[in-house]
Amino acid sequence: MAMATIDNGVNVQALLDAREALRGAPQAAQFTWRAACKWEKGTHSKTTVHKFLGLGEEQRHKTASSFDADHPEIFASEDHGITPVEYLLVGLASCLTAGIAAVAQNRGIQLRSVESTVEGKMDIRGILGIDSDVRNGYDDIKVTFKIDADASKKEIEAIVAQSQKRSAVYDAITNPVNVTVEVV
Amino acid sequence: MAMATIDNGVNVQALLDAREALRGAPQAAQFTWRAACKWEKGTHSKTTVHKFLGLGEEQRHKTASSFDADHPEIFASEDHGITPVEYLLVGLASCLTAGIAAVAQNRGIQLRSVESTVEGKMDIRGILGIDSDVRNGYDDIKVTFKIDADASKKEIEAIVAQSQKRSAVYDAITNPVNVTVEVV
Repeated sequence: MAMATIDNGVNVQALLDAREALRGAPQAAQFTWRAACKWEKGTHSKTTVHKFLGLGEEQRHKTASSFDADHPEIFASEDHGITPVEYLLVGLASCLTAGIAAVAQNRGIQLRSVESTVEGKMDIRGILGIDSDVRNGYDDIKVTFKIDADASKKEIEAIVAQSQKRSAVYDAITNPVNVTVEVV
Repeated sequence: MAMATIDNGVNVQALLDAREALRGAPQAAQFTWRAACKWEKGTHSKTTVHKFLGLGEEQRHKTASSFDADHPEIFASEDHGITPVEYLLVGLASCLTAGIAAVAQNRGIQLRSVESTVEGKMDIRGILGIDSDVRNGYDDIKVTFKIDADASKKEIEAIVAQSQKRSAVYDAITNPVNVTVEVV
C-alpha cells in the first residue's frame, strides 16, 4: 500500500489516538499556554516561554525559549528584535504549515517542500492616534503557499483549506478573542 | 522640571514628530510587515522576519531573525520550538509592554520594572476536531502586569489602559482580522 511509504514526519496515529482519548475526557483537553514578559528598556522587551498546562497536569517544553521584541530604528527605537505584530505572522505561518504536514500525512500525500510568505498590512495612523477611524491592528493579512508534493493542485488546495479550518492561530486572528488585562 | 529627568528609553518627541508628519502623508503610514516560513519536518517550521515596507519605501531590521515553531512531545512531536499559539502570547505581551514604556514616558512617569504573565486558555478538542462547538483558537487570554514606577496605582492603571487602547496586537487578537490564504 502506497501510504506506508509516506512520511512527512507527523505521527498521525498518535493524534488520532489522542482524539479518541480526549473525546471521553474533556477536562484533559483544557490547555493553558503561558508566557512571561520583562521590559528591558524603551520599547524593548524579552518574553520567555517554557511551561504550560495540559492533559490535566503541568507540562514543559524541552527548553525555555526567550524572544526579544522591539520597534525598528525608523520609529526611533533600537531594533533589538522583531516587532510585536510580526510575532503574529510567525504564529500564523507556522500554525498553517504544521497543519498542512499533519493533514497531508493523514491523507497519504508526501510533501517535498512547503514554503509560504505572509504579508500583513497596517496603517500606522491607528497606533499613532492620528485618525480614530483607523484601526490599530492589521487591516488585512495574506498568506501565500508554494507547495511541492505528490498531489494535484486540487488536492494541495484541499489540504491547505483543511489546515486553515483547524488552525488555532487562524481562528484566533480572524475571530475575536476575549483578552483581559489587569495590574496587580 | 521633574520630567527632564525621566528616562524610560523611549524617544517620545520622535513619535510626536512622526504623528505630525504622517498626519499629512497617509500614504507613508501604510506598512506591510512580512514573514517567510519554511516547513522543516513534521510539525516543525522555521519562519524568518527581516524586511518590511513603510514610510513609502523598503525597510529592514538590523538583522534577519528566525523562529522555530513545533508541537510539544505530548502531541508526539519533537518540540523544536514553541507552538504557533504561544507566538501570539509573545506578540501580545511585548506590544502592551512597549506601549506602557511609551505612554509612561509621554506622561513623565519613570518606570523601574514592568513584568507580565500571559495565560491563554484553549480547549484542544477544537483543533482535534472532536467537537465542532469548540473553537480552535483561544477561549480567553489573561495578561497580568506587575509594574514598579514612580506613580500611584491609579496612574499605573491608566498607563496600562492607554497602552491597551493603542496596541496593534491587542486589536488584532480581540477584533477580527481578514486573512486570505492562497496556493500558487
